[in-house]
Amino acid sequence: MPKTFVIAQGGGPTAVINQTLAGAVAEIERRYPDARILGARHGVRGVRDGDYVDFSDVSPERMRLIGNTPGAALGSTRDKPDAAYCELVLKGLQKIDANAFIYIGGNDTSGTQQILTDAAGDSMAFIHAPKTIDNDLMENDHTPGFISAGEFVAGAFQSIDLDFRALPGIYVGIVMGRHAGFLTAAAAAWRDDEDDGPHLIYVPERPFSTERFIDDVKRTLDRHKRCVVAVSEGVSTADGKSLVESLVGPDKVERDAHGNVKLSGSDLNRAFEAALAEGLPGRRARVDALGYVPRGYIGAINPVDASEAYEAGQYAVQVADEGGGSVALKYEGGKTVMRKVPLSAVAGKTRHMPDEFLTEDGIRLAQPGIDYLNRLIPRRFAVGKPFV
Amino acid sequence: MPKTFVIAQGGGPTAVINQTLAGAVAEIERRYPDARILGARHGVRGVRDGDYVDFSDVSPERMRLIGNTPGAALGSTRDKPDAAYCELVLKGLQKIDANAFIYIGGNDTSGTQQILTDAAGDSMAFIHAPKTIDNDLMENDHTPGFISAGEFVAGAFQSIDLDFRALPGIYVGIVMGRHAGFLTAAAAAWRDDEDDGPHLIYVPERPFSTERFIDDVKRTLDRHKRCVVAVSEGVSTADGKSLVESLVGPDKVERDAHGNVKLSGSDLNRAFEAALAEGLPGRRARVDALGYVPRGYIGAINPVDASEAYEAGQYAVQVADEGGGSVALKYEGGKTVMRKVPLSAVAGKTRHMPDEFLTEDGIRLAQPGIDYLNRLIPRRFAVGKPFV
Repeated sequence: MPKTFVIAQGGGPTAVINQTLAGAVAEIERRYPDARILGARHGVRGVRDGDYVDFSDVSPERMRLIGNTPGAALGSTRDKPDAAYCELVLKGLQKIDANAFIYIGGNDTSGTQQILTDAAGDSMAFIHAPKTIDNDLMENDHTPGFISAGEFVAGAFQSIDLDFRALPGIYVGIVMGRHAGFLTAAAAAWRDDEDDGPHLIYVPERPFSTERFIDDVKRTLDRHKRCVVAVSEGVSTADGKSLVESLVGPDKVERDAHGNVKLSGSDLNRAFEAALAEGLPGRRARVDALGYVPRGYIGAINPVDASEAYEAGQYAVQVADEGGGSVALKYEGGKTVMRKVPLSAVAGKTRHMPDEFLTEDGIRLAQPGIDYLNRLIPRRFAVGKPFV
Repeated sequence: MPKTFVIAQGGGPTAVINQTLAGAVAEIERRYPDARILGARHGVRGVRDGDYVDFSDVSPERMRLIGNTPGAALGSTRDKPDAAYCELVLKGLQKIDANAFIYIGGNDTSGTQQILTDAAGDSMAFIHAPKTIDNDLMENDHTPGFISAGEFVAGAFQSIDLDFRALPGIYVGIVMGRHAGFLTAAAAAWRDDEDDGPHLIYVPERPFSTERFIDDVKRTLDRHKRCVVAVSEGVSTADGKSLVESLVGPDKVERDAHGNVKLSGSDLNRAFEAALAEGLPGRRARVDALGYVPRGYIGAINPVDASEAYEAGQYAVQVADEGGGSVALKYEGGKTVMRKVPLSAVAGKTRHMPDEFLTEDGIRLAQPGIDYLNRLIPRRFAVGKPFV
């Protein structure tokens, strides 16, 4: 009997998650020309509800175009199956005689696969293919989606710094990143020297203090006549609460189905505006949240990222043949290679930036961090030093 | 005696304003190999204070690199000279025996040149070279800086729409544009069909009503299961006040030296968040201000824009030879050409989007608007239609 594969996408879309889908579909077709390949719409929800795309109806040309398109072509979901939901998902998979379920996503997605594996035993292969702009998956050197998003953020901050050389002031750019600061750190990937912004970076790995922040900005203004700051939306105060939660109050914050605090409102913008107005009155200051654009900007799709994402999809089929697990991107012998790791090594865990990536005061990149980012996100644009 | 040229940059930086600087310097060197070419730092402020870069010290290689670099390499300013300031600027120019002053900028910059012309008579040539992402200069088909910024905005909204297909909800993206909606309209430049976002656009040329906005969003959600909105920061209520001013109160808004209301805070974000929470409770909604990134993003420099900006700088030298005036980009016989127009035709005026660019209800592009944007900002990326 021909095999049946189910593929789905979970969590936030990225610039290259559809490459992983395209890679998986192409590899299944290559290995198993008779296989039935179904794409579940909106992640596990589509499996639960039996809402599928049959890839035999999709031309190779369309799949190629979809691979090059940001977003999540199958639709995504933030649903995190509990026991009851999980049972419905399993039933859905059994109903169509699925042999393997490939779920492309981040932490939460790998957690879902772990739950399903625990419930289903060896009756089916559950595979997690990595995807996250946060770059926060354990076992991975880096994750598909991070390089493109990082390149966008590096270019945005390089551009903003040039803007603020021309019209000096304080700029605070809020970057996605709940628990890991990699993407915020990428803002500094294309600095040439000390005078280049961003001059300060604040990441979730180090406690944030508003008082110290104002001091840092003051010192930077004295030295560089402007101050460009990159800050993670997930920065936390010393008590471990997210800055948003500390400011808004634990009862008032919104949470998603995974229990994560909603960081996407303008509360954080407002907090920084207020802190700067109080701490540095009269100084020109601008607070922007870069928002959703970095994670899927069609103009900054990095070709290495795209090709690694595709390869991760192909390798997911190999992992399916081996009974399931998580695809991890390792850096070995000077290149990125795909490896299989146990789901339990990735599921529900967060990889933080290594301590040595940051200077001791935690507000700048140290050499290992610079080296890491230079390797992944080499400079793309040559710039001429301004006259000011 | 050799001629002395002074060049300066005013107003907000763009992705290509340095091309205009490079074009002007190259053309002066070509026409007048003995000329002294001085760049004033931070616009008229540098002229007033005698703070100059001597371009004879700058290598052609560096000028080429600077041309390719966003920002404003000489530094910019928001100063608008009053009579006293103006006299100091004139004295500054006379002190160095300037024959011509080329000032690259937008409305306010051309206004400054008009004031200086009125004060100095024929003793010196005052030239305005156009630059603005707002695309709001009279006499111009379009302005250097607009195409690159428009391309960024078009790509950002194309990407955001793909994101919101995957995880449905409401997205409101706030785009720069105080009095003219061209840049916000560019958000819709790369739509393929009715189902593509942005589904709604709100520009300063049409009165904004929160109540109608909520109705528009509701209708869009019913039809497309998501709603992507592009809105100008300068949208105004029917009484002519900017939405920010209407919300915050006329006494509390901040103003710049030109008397312009500061639109860059998070007040507008918050107003939209509140309106959506009240009008569409429980619906996933995200409000982002695109902020400063679009105007100078190094990854979206359009080559046509760059080359037109360079040509505008070259042509400014021709206008200097003719005694001064404003450089305008006209569209004649199927191509963009440089023409000289009187400063008075541009100074202190605003070009709005033509009425016929928008549908009657004012929330979508009409065919003439689509045609205009397609001509200037042709689609750059092919995308595959998602399965959802």
